[in-house]
Parts: sequence; structure tokens; C-alpha cells
Amino acid sequence: MPHPADLARRAAALDDEHAATDLRDRFLLPDGIVYLDGNSLGALPATVPETLAGAVRDQWGRDLVHSWNTHGWWDAPTRVGDAVGRIVGAAPGQVVVGDSTTVRLHQTLHAAVALRPDAGVVVTDPGSFPTDLYVVAGVAAQVGWRVEHSGPDAVPALLDDLARRGERVGAVVLSHVDYRTGRLWDLPSLTRATHAAGAVSVWDLCHSAGAVPVDLDLHGVDLAVGCTYKYLNGGPGSPAYGYVAARHQERFVNVLPGWNGHAEPFAMAGAYEGAPGIARARIGTPPMLSLLALEAALHAFDGVDVRDVRRRSSSLTRFLRDCLEALVPGVEVVSPLDDAERGSQVAVRHPDAYGVVQALAARGVVTDFRTPDVVRLGVAAPYLTHGDMLAAAGAFADVLAAGDHLDPAYGRRSVVT
Amino acid sequence: MPHPADLARRAAALDDEHAATDLRDRFLLPDGIVYLDGNSLGALPATVPETLAGAVRDQWGRDLVHSWNTHGWWDAPTRVGDAVGRIVGAAPGQVVVGDSTTVRLHQTLHAAVALRPDAGVVVTDPGSFPTDLYVVAGVAAQVGWRVEHSGPDAVPALLDDLARRGERVGAVVLSHVDYRTGRLWDLPSLTRATHAAGAVSVWDLCHSAGAVPVDLDLHGVDLAVGCTYKYLNGGPGSPAYGYVAARHQERFVNVLPGWNGHAEPFAMAGAYEGAPGIARARIGTPPMLSLLALEAALHAFDGVDVRDVRRRSSSLTRFLRDCLEALVPGVEVVSPLDDAERGSQVAVRHPDAYGVVQALAARGVVTDFRTPDVVRLGVAAPYLTHGDMLAAAGAFADVLAAGDHLDPAYGRRSVVT
Repeated sequence: MPHPADLARRAAALDDEHAATDLRDRFLLPDGIVYLDGNSLGALPATVPETLAGAVRDQWGRDLVHSWNTHGWWDAPTRVGDAVGRIVGAAPGQVVVGDSTTVRLHQTLHAAVALRPDAGVVVTDPGSFPTDLYVVAGVAAQVGWRVEHSGPDAVPALLDDLARRGERVGAVVLSHVDYRTGRLWDLPSLTRATHAAGAVSVWDLCHSAGAVPVDLDLHGVDLAVGCTYKYLNGGPGSPAYGYVAARHQERFVNVLPGWNGHAEPFAMAGAYEGAPGIARARIGTPPMLSLLALEAALHAFDGVDVRDVRRRSSSLTRFLRDCLEALVPGVEVVSPLDDAERGSQVAVRHPDAYGVVQALAARGVVTDFRTPDVVRLGVAAPYLTHGDMLAAAGAFADVLAAGDHLDPAYGRRSVVT
Repeated sequence: MPHPADLARRAAALDDEHAATDLRDRFLLPDGIVYLDGNSLGALPATVPETLAGAVRDQWGRDLVHSWNTHGWWDAPTRVGDAVGRIVGAAPGQVVVGDSTTVRLHQTLHAAVALRPDAGVVVTDPGSFPTDLYVVAGVAAQVGWRVEHSGPDAVPALLDDLARRGERVGAVVLSHVDYRTGRLWDLPSLTRATHAAGAVSVWDLCHSAGAVPVDLDLHGVDLAVGCTYKYLNGGPGSPAYGYVAARHQERFVNVLPGWNGHAEPFAMAGAYEGAPGIARARIGTPPMLSLLALEAALHAFDGVDVRDVRRRSSSLTRFLRDCLEALVPGVEVVSPLDDAERGSQVAVRHPDAYGVVQALAARGVVTDFRTPDVVRLGVAAPYLTHGDMLAAAGAFADVLAAGDHLDPAYGRRSVVT
């Protein structure tokens, strides 16, 4: 077991090695905390406060309704969509921002159904974030499809099996990174397997966008959704996005048609006709203040290659794991050991996980709890250091040694994802 | 025809008479303009900038993810819903805020279908705002209902006729105020007629909430939706709301089930079970910055009775009409003459309406254009005076007299509703 002083030296050396990707000065984080919950709510980018205050004061307050044209509000959903696209590997014109992940996924699944009208089965991972399961089940019930559940690693075999039985699979809906364990699934090969089965691939990027290269275009993904308030740092409940590969846009059916997505929105036509391109996936009027905050936040990625973020993240999570194993006797890390299979978090299983999360917070280490027994340590690489990883692991060890996590004051209230 | 000086004296007298309801100091409006587009984007309430800046700095930035609990983010959709409810006459626990009007209406119509599973027809006004028509048509196609179109005044006769033919009407979907003409429909009697036909009433309150008393509970309305960025001044694209009368909540089916509306959101259960009460109409994670801006904005209604706003509004629109008729030869006002039938706007038909809107804007009078030939003069009573009405009518007359509206520089680009 390495001596703590060795770990400290290693942290310093690693931070030197990765100094070029330390972007903490692009964020406004309070002193004295180690923030390991950026996979729930990303930190505040330094660009946001003044940009948003200006949008309120000079756009809404002064230029009022004219701002829809003069300040580019009308085009914001697709303009900010392109900015998100740069981060997830989508060429311009394929991503639209607005609404929640729930709504985007509902819309996207209906679009998948329209692309595969003769199919009757949708495959998804029972370990998906619950909303995804609810939406998949809901849409399947609406259109009369059956839901087949399978862990992503078993999906190719399931697809083969379904094909042998003559069942037509319409869509495979998976999360790129498991929200609990941090397991990063193999998007390229699962997308290939999906296509081999004649189905449409639908990826949920909530826990990968901004932390892991996604390369939607490169891997031929069909449809995708994601939130923007985790590693994209868009702020609480910032609008989600939908990706529709250019080749599918002409046949994209919008189950939530609003005037914002109409071909001629100001003609006030009585019948719906979708706009050309990705704009046809627009729904209603977007929450502009949240959207402009997101746009400002994405500037934290200016000049940044997500591959470099990923290298830093892999180093941080690997070191965090090493520190935990060195300092916390018997720690049970459930995130994969292999860098290539680990997203940007380290999940630890502990019977008193809820108390551990609370006790860590009391020591300035912000993590979160996932029922029933997981402590998630999310690693948003741009604003964290190897020194932070060591500090977090040290606090973890101190909590357990002191028994802080058993404090009965820590009830069962939960922290939001 | 009254002399302009007489109109000025009358404006001053009316402003004296209505001084108690002049709330302009609750808004941050630029000097030198008459803002008659509050029915598109309400003015900036004075409470918003600092509240929102604080939410960014002290909640998101400093307290980070813990703000979901410590700053009441989690409960905001229903808490702000109750604040909207006070304005539209809904007792607490029946209004939820979040998502766009498009999404809320889609959800609401599906809920109406679930309340009337044996029906097969939905009735709506072909003059509705286009989004409503698209959503009604879309949901009807999904569930196999037929859409019957009828102007609201002819709805009772249509319902009788359908009943005679043995057709079961499931829902009647109407807007309280016509977005073009400003016609205020008789919500109480149309709701009674809807109920007499065994159908569910669905009201779109976009152009009435905050300007006209709605009294949802009093009139036994079943379901309603509305935006918050017009007379509620919530900011660009601020989240919409849905009303579900308490008596229907137990049977409310949420076609857009997300974890936010789950009975035990943090249990991460794989199967959806709606929360008790109005919370079951929650969808995904709401755009918190836009939602908190809305919450701050609603304080402009603190201590305000919407009946008093309405009295001021009726006086303003009546006087605006008088001024237009006095100063603009041949003006064609299409809004109803009768106060009881007029919402909070005065619409004028003019063959060069688009040019008129642009020329008025150049003179500091902000109105908007509705295709093909309508100039809308929206009257958000809390921050407008009778003096403003006279100034607007005077500018209208000056534009026409000078021929400004014929300037070829005014192309055909449109202003957002």
C-alpha cells in the first residue's frame, strides 16, 4: 500500500503532467470543497453570470420582443444545438436544444417508430436511468411495440435471437454511460449490431457528453438525446438536446408539433408542415434564459478537444480509484477497472452509502447517493485535479474511520441526480 | 370627433381615476417607448434581475447540487404552479409549471382522452393559435379521434348536433382569448355546454391569464394550459403551466412520464407510478433558471386582484379604441366593442399592417403584426397608462399621414408572437 506522502507526490506529478487541461479558471467554484457531483449538476462557468445578466437587462428588459430577431433568440435552439454538436461529434444542422430529456426521448422514440413502421420490438437496458425506462415503456404501449430488456453487453446476442425468431426490432435504446456504475458502453460496436439487426440506434448521452468522445457522425448513430446540466455545465435543468442524423431528417416525424418547428412559423397556417432540416425537431417556445445560460456555459469548451478532456478524466478516475484502494480498507469500487470501460465517475458500493455521502459533504467533499448502496464520485475533469482526488479519498477514509457516516442525524432524504 | 386636447385631458383624468392600479414602478421599462407587445413578451419585472443573479451566484455557483433541496428547486414546479393558480383562480395543488405550452397541451389532451375513453370526437376552434391546432390534430390522429372545427360561439349548437347524431365528444379545446382579434370568449357558459355534452373542457389561457379573471375552480373547468411570458411577464419562453382540477387528478394519465413526476422519484424504480396530486403532471427536470425568473416575476402580482387589473385594462383598451377612432380616419378596429367581449388588446386591420408595425416601432410604439393584415396593440394594464394609449393612437395617425408604413425598407420579416 503506498504511503500517503507517495500519493501526494504522485498527485502533484500528475497535475503537472496534465497542467494544460486544467481549466478550473473557467469556472466559479467555491473554495474549500471538492466537487464530485458534476455528473449531477455541473459547476458554474465563469462566462454565465454576466452573459445572463446582460440578456435579462439589455435583451428582455431593454429591447424586449425585438430580441427574438435582433439578439438571435429565434435561432438559438439550432445555434446552441450546433455548439453541443461540436462536443458530441455531430456536424452542424443535426442537433436541436430545448425541452427536457424526457420530452426529447419521447419525441425521438416516436421518430424511431416512424422510421421503422413494420417493426414491433424495442430493446433497452433495464439498468437505464428510470426516466428512459418510463418513456420507452410509454411509447411502446402507445404504438403497440413490445419492450425487450437486456444489459448492453448482451444486446448483440439478443438481437440475433430475435432475428432468428423472425421478430423485427425497430430501435435499440441505450445509455452511453451507466448512471450508477459509470460503465461506458461500446457505442460503435453496439450501433453496428443495431444496424445489422435492421434497427435504429437511440443513444442517451446524459453521462457522456462533455466527458467522453461520442462521435455520433463517425459511428453512424441514428438518433440521440442528452441533458446539458451535467458535464456540459448548462445550469440546473438546462434544456436537453436531440440529435437526428441528417440522412433521417426528411423522414423525421415530430410527435410534438408546435409552431416553432413549422416550415413557415409566421404564416400561422392551420396545418402542420415541418421545417426543413433539424429545425423540424423544434417543439414549443424554448426557455430562453436557461438556453442563453447554456450557450454561455458551452464557451468553457472553447478550444477544447473532448479527447483531451477524456485523457485527463481517465487519469483522474484511475488515480481516484488508486487512492481509494490505498486509503480505504476494503473499499468496493464498482466502476470498471479498465479505462476504456469507465466513464467519468467512480462508484463505490457501501451499505451505509447515504450516510457516507452526507458525512463527506460535511467535510466539503460533494458526492451523491444512488439507491440502494452507491456513492457516486463524479469527475468533471476540466475543473478537478489529482490533488482533489487524493483529498476526496482521504476524506472518505476519515469518514469511515471516525464513523461519521453512522450519525443518526443523516436521515433518508435524497439528493437529486 | 373630439379635439386632441380633449383626449389629452381625458387621458389625464382617467389616469388619475385609475392611479391605484398603476404598477409601472414594478417593471423596468426603457424610457421613451410605448410597449404594446406585452401580449407577446411581457416587460421585465423589477424583481427579476437581482433574484436571478442571486440564483446563479449563490445557488448554482455556491451551493451547487444541494440547492435542489436547500433552495427549494425540487418543489419549484408545484410551488410556482400555486402562484400561477392564485392568478387564474385555482386553489393550491392544481397547477404545475414546466415545459412549453405545446408540450403541456399535448399532455393535457392525452389526459382528456384517458378521462373519456369511450369518446371519439374533439371539438376546437379553427381560429386557435396554430400550435393548438397542430397538437389537437396530432393527438387526435394518435388516438383515433375526429376533429370537429367550430368557432366558439357556434360550439353549443355543434355539441347539440353531435349529440343528436349519437357522437360522443371527449373534449372541447378552446382559447379564452383569440390571439388575433382579442375576442374574449365566454368561458363559464362554454364550459357548461361542454359538460352538458359529457365532454371535458380544455382551456388555453395564454392570452387571458394575468389580464382577465379566469376563475378556473369557480367555473368548474377540467383542464387548462397557458404560457407565462405574456401578461404574467415570466420572460422569454418562460415555462408553461398545466391545470388539472383536483377531482380529476387521481385519474390523470401522464403520457410523458419522467422521474420528476414519479411517486418516489429517488427510489429509481423501473416502473412508473405517478405521484399523488398535481405533481403527477410533472415531466422532466425543469429549466430552473427560467422557472426562478418566472417565480420572481410573479411578485409583480403581489397584493393585486386580477379584477382590478381587468378594470384598468378595459378602460385602457376602450380609450385606445376611442383615440384610434378619433385620430385615424377610417381605422378598422376588429376587436369587440363590448368590454365584456374584449380581452386585453385592440387589433386593427390594415392592408399594410406589416409596414404599420415597423413604422410604429420606429416611433417608439411597439406593437406586432399578425398575418395577413392585423396590427395587434396589446395592453398589459399594470405598466401602461391612458396617456400611453393616446400617444400610440397619435403615432398611428402620424404614420399613416406621413406614409411611413409604405417605406419599401420594411420587408416581410416577422415579429415573434
